[in-house]
Amino acid sequence: MRLLIDTLGADKGAEEIVKGCVEAYDVKPYEMILVGDPDQIMGAIPEGFKGKPDLRIIETKDYIENTDEPALAIRRRKEASMVMGFRALKAGEADGMLSAGSTGALLAGGTLIIGRIPKVERAALTIISPGVDKPTIVLDVGANMDCTPNLLRQFALMGSIYAKSVFHVDRPKVGLLNIGAEKGKGNQLTKEAYDLLEQAQIQFVGNVEPRDILTTDAHVVVCDGFAGNVLLKSMEGTAQVMLGLLKDAIYSSTRAKLGGILVKPALSGLKQKLDYREYGAAPLLGTKQPVFKAHGSSDHIAIRNGLLAMMRFIEGDVLTEITTQMGGESDERTENS
Amino acid sequence: MRLLIDTLGADKGAEEIVKGCVEAYDVKPYEMILVGDPDQIMGAIPEGFKGKPDLRIIETKDYIENTDEPALAIRRRKEASMVMGFRALKAGEADGMLSAGSTGALLAGGTLIIGRIPKVERAALTIISPGVDKPTIVLDVGANMDCTPNLLRQFALMGSIYAKSVFHVDRPKVGLLNIGAEKGKGNQLTKEAYDLLEQAQIQFVGNVEPRDILTTDAHVVVCDGFAGNVLLKSMEGTAQVMLGLLKDAIYSSTRAKLGGILVKPALSGLKQKLDYREYGAAPLLGTKQPVFKAHGSSDHIAIRNGLLAMMRFIEGDVLTEITTQMGGESDERTENS
Repeated sequence: MRLLIDTLGADKGAEEIVKGCVEAYDVKPYEMILVGDPDQIMGAIPEGFKGKPDLRIIETKDYIENTDEPALAIRRRKEASMVMGFRALKAGEADGMLSAGSTGALLAGGTLIIGRIPKVERAALTIISPGVDKPTIVLDVGANMDCTPNLLRQFALMGSIYAKSVFHVDRPKVGLLNIGAEKGKGNQLTKEAYDLLEQAQIQFVGNVEPRDILTTDAHVVVCDGFAGNVLLKSMEGTAQVMLGLLKDAIYSSTRAKLGGILVKPALSGLKQKLDYREYGAAPLLGTKQPVFKAHGSSDHIAIRNGLLAMMRFIEGDVLTEITTQMGGESDERTENS
Repeated sequence: MRLLIDTLGADKGAEEIVKGCVEAYDVKPYEMILVGDPDQIMGAIPEGFKGKPDLRIIETKDYIENTDEPALAIRRRKEASMVMGFRALKAGEADGMLSAGSTGALLAGGTLIIGRIPKVERAALTIISPGVDKPTIVLDVGANMDCTPNLLRQFALMGSIYAKSVFHVDRPKVGLLNIGAEKGKGNQLTKEAYDLLEQAQIQFVGNVEPRDILTTDAHVVVCDGFAGNVLLKSMEGTAQVMLGLLKDAIYSSTRAKLGGILVKPALSGLKQKLDYREYGAAPLLGTKQPVFKAHGSSDHIAIRNGLLAMMRFIEGDVLTEITTQMGGESDERTENS
C-alpha cells in the first residue's frame, strides 16, 4: 500500500508527523511517501530506516496555513505540500493521503483536485468520537455549513458504509443529531431530514441528542457541518477544561497531590477512554480517492493510528462500495437538493 | 416582591422545589405563591413557616408533561399548574414566575399568555453557563430553532442589557457563537449576523468558538436555538460522562479509593466551578413579565439560587430597559427579518 503523508502545516511540526509514520510502518509496513522539507524529514527518520526503498520524499518547503483562503490557496500555491500531495494522489502515485494541515484546504483540494464520487453532492468531514462503551462516527463536522435534508441523507448512506468497515457490523445504527428525542423536534432541516432518513436504505434509529453522543449505541450520527462542529468543539473544550481543573485540583494541596499519585493509574484509563488519538484521523467521505484528516495538534500516536485507520479504510474498499451504492441512486433524488 | 413558583412537572418532585423556595426565603424574604398540590406543598413546608402570611397556594394537581404538545397544552389545559401560574402572573398577582417544568410549554405560555415586549420578534431562552473565571450568558438555547440574522441582533441587544444586571458591567462584551474565530467563517446565518452585530449598539467582540465557552471573556454569546441547544447539551453530556468516569476510576481499586479520599476536597472545588446550580435558573428574555426557567432536574439549591437570580432580575428592572431600548428600534429594522 502506498500512503502519502503531508508533513507540513501541523501544529507540532514535521518531526512528530514523521515519527508517527515510522511507528505505523513498524506495525504494518507500507510505501511511505512524505511530502515536505527533506532536511526536516531526514532529521526525523531513524538511522535504521534511512536506506529503505519504501521511503520516498516529495520535496517542498511551502505549505498552506489556516489563515489562507483555502480554495484560492489550493488553486494557486502549486508548491504547497498539500497541493503537491493531492496532485501525486490524483496521478495515481498513492492509494491515500493524510494531512494534519489546514482543514479548509483539505476540503477544497479534495473537491477541486481529487473530485467527488459521481452523485455525491458534497464530501463530508467525519470524526470518530470516543465513547464510554464504543466510539461513534459523526459527520459532517465542518465541511458543509448549510445543508439540505437530502445532503444529510447522503451523509447517512456514506457514513453507514464507512461504519461497516470500522465496526465490522452488517447493519450499522444511524442516528440524526437533534435537540430532542422524539420525531418532530428540531429545526426545519432536521424535521425534513428525519422523514428522508426513515425511508433510506439504512438502519435509522431516530434522533440522537447531543448529550448522548458519548453513550449512544448509534454507530453513525449525521448532522450539518455547523452543528457537527459545534458539537465536536464544545465536547473537546469541556473535556479539556475539566482535565485542566482536575490537574489544578490535584496540585492544590499536599494532601491532594498525594491522592493524585494514588489515583493516577486509574485516571489514565479515563483519559484513554476519551482520547481522540485512538482513531487518529478520519476520512473526508465522498471524494474519489481516500483523503484523511488528522487533528492539527496530532502527536505521533495520533498520526500512527490515523495511518493504520486509513490502511483499514483502503483495504475495506469503502470508496468502491460508496461509489456502487451512490450509483444506484436515481438522478431525480440526487438532484432534489 | 411576589414570586410565583410552579411546583409541578419537575424531575425531582414538588418537595425539592418547595425546599428551595423556603431556602431562598431564608436568604431574602418574599411573598411566596406556590402553584400545585396543597398536600404535597404543605408536606414540604417546615412547621415554623406554616403560619406565615407570606405563603399563598394556588391549588391544582394537573401539570403539562414534556411529552405534551406545548402550544396545545397551554391553550387547553386550564388547570395545569403552569397555565394557572401564567394566568396569575398576567393578572398582576405576582412580579415573576419560575418553573422547572416543560421548557416547550414555558416558551409557549410566555408568548401566548404573557406576550412579547413590543418590537421583540421572539423571546429567547437564556442560560448562564458556568466558566473557569466567570460565567457567560448564552442565548438562544432552544426557543427558536430557525433564526434570522436580525433575530440574533435582537438577542444580542437583550442579552447585553441582561448581562449588565448579572455582571454589573457597563458595556458587556457580546460574542457570536461560530465555528471559527475570523469574520467570514460559519454558515449563512452567522456570516450575515456578524455584519449586523458590528453595527449594533453593543460591544461586539466577534466570533466565539464553541470550545472557548468555558473560558471566553465575553459576557454574552448569541446563537440560534438549535446551535445553542447543541452547545449546551454537549457540554452537559461531556461533563456528566467525565465525572462518571472519574468516579468509576476512583472506585476501581483500593489504591485509587484511598487517593480519592485524599483528593476529594480539591475535587469538590472542580465540581462547584462547573455547577449549573450556581445561577439556578435563567430568564426567557423578551416577554413582558419575568419568566424564569429552572433545569428540569433542579434540586433545592438550584431552585434557591434561581429565585435569588430572579429577584435581582426584577430589582434590576431588566425588562423595562429592554422595553425602552427596543422601543427605540426603527420599524423598518424590526420588520426586516
